Amino acid sequence: MSDYRVRGRIWIEGPDGTYLGYGRVILLERIRDTGSISAAARTMKMSYRHAWQLVDSMNLQAPQPLVKKGAGGKGGGGTRLTPAGERAIETFWRLYQEFQGTMVECSKNVP
Amino acid sequence: MSDYRVRGRIWIEGPDGTYLGYGRVILLERIRDTGSISAAARTMKMSYRHAWQLVDSMNLQAPQPLVKKGAGGKGGGGTRLTPAGERAIETFWRLYQEFQGTMVECSKNVP
Repeated sequence: MSDYRVRGRIWIEGPDGTYLGYGRVILLERIRDTGSISAAARTMKMSYRHAWQLVDSMNLQAPQPLVKKGAGGKGGGGTRLTPAGERAIETFWRLYQEFQGTMVECSKNVP
Repeated sequence: MSDYRVRGRIWIEGPDGTYLGYGRVILLERIRDTGSISAAARTMKMSYRHAWQLVDSMNLQAPQPLVKKGAGGKGGGGTRLTPAGERAIETFWRLYQEFQGTMVECSKNVP
């Protein structure tokens, strides 16, 4: 059964549902890199509306907002991650890496 | 951030895609309990066709078939799990339990 491996997916959930997951964290990174929610959404082929909803969901659930929105429209911009946003990214990837390690270990136990 | 916890999902994948996951293993248990794929499907509000497809997928991917199908139709039945099917259930729940333990540990590391 060595052709088989254990796969999985993790996310962080709060009282109001999903708080951080793989897609949300990639979105945060793209916002950091582009300085814009709409540009970040485009790189992920995600609708602007959906990206805003995800950002709002994270901002409302986090102890402190993760994304500080800049002015929209032409000549707008200046959207950026807060230090809490940077920490959220780090936290998620640390858990994710730990989890990947567990998956590899689990795969060894599939007879 | 103590209101947050790490949630996740695992499955076992082979060269042809998903081999065993939560839903598939519950289906195997229901087949064992009812002696019938269609009865098992009904208890899971799953279509008969979908249940058959899942069983076929598992049987084709396993080193030995997990389910031995009985004759269909009126007076048919006698569908049962093979010893390989019983082992597949055990293997999955063992991994699942290990994984749940990891989730609890991971949750402690969410700052």
